[in-house]
Amino acid sequence: MLYMCTLKSRRYGEGASVDSPTPSEVGHVGETRELRKQRTHRALLDAALELTEEQGFSSVSLRQVTKAAGIVPTAFYRHYESMDALGETLVTESFTSLRAMMRAARAETDDYSEVVHRSAVVMVRYVRLHRAHFRFIIRERSGGVRVIRESIQEHLRLFVTELAADLGGFPALAPWLESDRVLLAEVIVNQMVVVAERILDLPGNDDAAIARAERQLRMILLGVGTWRSQ
Amino acid sequence: MLYMCTLKSRRYGEGASVDSPTPSEVGHVGETRELRKQRTHRALLDAALELTEEQGFSSVSLRQVTKAAGIVPTAFYRHYESMDALGETLVTESFTSLRAMMRAARAETDDYSEVVHRSAVVMVRYVRLHRAHFRFIIRERSGGVRVIRESIQEHLRLFVTELAADLGGFPALAPWLESDRVLLAEVIVNQMVVVAERILDLPGNDDAAIARAERQLRMILLGVGTWRSQ
Repeated sequence: MLYMCTLKSRRYGEGASVDSPTPSEVGHVGETRELRKQRTHRALLDAALELTEEQGFSSVSLRQVTKAAGIVPTAFYRHYESMDALGETLVTESFTSLRAMMRAARAETDDYSEVVHRSAVVMVRYVRLHRAHFRFIIRERSGGVRVIRESIQEHLRLFVTELAADLGGFPALAPWLESDRVLLAEVIVNQMVVVAERILDLPGNDDAAIARAERQLRMILLGVGTWRSQ
Repeated sequence: MLYMCTLKSRRYGEGASVDSPTPSEVGHVGETRELRKQRTHRALLDAALELTEEQGFSSVSLRQVTKAAGIVPTAFYRHYESMDALGETLVTESFTSLRAMMRAARAETDDYSEVVHRSAVVMVRYVRLHRAHFRFIIRERSGGVRVIRESIQEHLRLFVTELAADLGGFPALAPWLESDRVLLAEVIVNQMVVVAERILDLPGNDDAAIARAERQLRMILLGVGTWRSQ
């Protein structure tokens, strides 16, 4: 699971002066080398998330990220090959658990109405819990860095492929052409992206967001029984 | 109607040397003051479109835009109050004609299948004709400038409102709650935004894009006859 840490919790510079080594380099008492590495790793990712929010990932520099994470610029390469590689890690960690959870929501029952409800719940809660990550995704899916844009599109395509496969398990959709199930899955995933976007914009309450997402999903799915795929 | 002009056509500096006044200031022979003003106006908008593509609107500076348009920075204020105002003009000109055309496509017939087809055609062709504008819209809808983001959201809401009103004219949708027609209109407009995004990414041919958009619209609309709004 992902966890969020704020810039504040990351600047754990208790008593660090200008001349003393930065906290990440010193580490906590008794901390192993590996743990220290992981902590810096996380600090770099969180710094990039926060800086992206202000200025977009394409103008975030390696220098800014390392400064916010409390390490010297050259130490960056012990963690990531490049800023693009760091950005791709953010994309991957945003999506990986969500994809598994969405599949689980669909696997436990074949009551289609229950699946719609569970999917909306998982989706809304997950995005709320990982606001910083999804603000990054929403912004950078059409942002200035091609590698990141393509990585996000690739993950969304995976959602579509997995959903299309699972849709084939529902009696009304089993006789459909695979290509039509993909088109339908695309509509659903697109709608979910918009739901995510709205959740980030409006603090509001989860129940209203879930109810709204559910109602729109139901509208999309209502006609599946009458579609003749040919 | 909007028209596109490339950066090249805008750098009409025939014979202009470093010391001579810039072409925009001199104008073409016999050109009125008003025409000259309009030409510079357009040059500023096009410069902003092109620069946004490279770096995102939030990092485009007034100085860059005026330089590309061939005027001195202070002359900017004869045309726009601020960079934000210029950005809002781009948003408005992207959407205004499209909205009118989409309404026209829905107004001329009440054959629902024909409406879906016409809407897909209008949408795909319009976005293709105005690529630079829609790349701006797609990017800046979640970009770094709040005023522009909100302006884009506002225009999309107008699409939704108008579509929801028009949907009320179809027999199957007339008995629906207005709030449900709005939810459905949102799903449709969101899907159209994704279609626009894909058109910009893939050059491909219009017919395939139209057929795909149409098929997804039909899937969304299939169930409207069975939905009970309560």
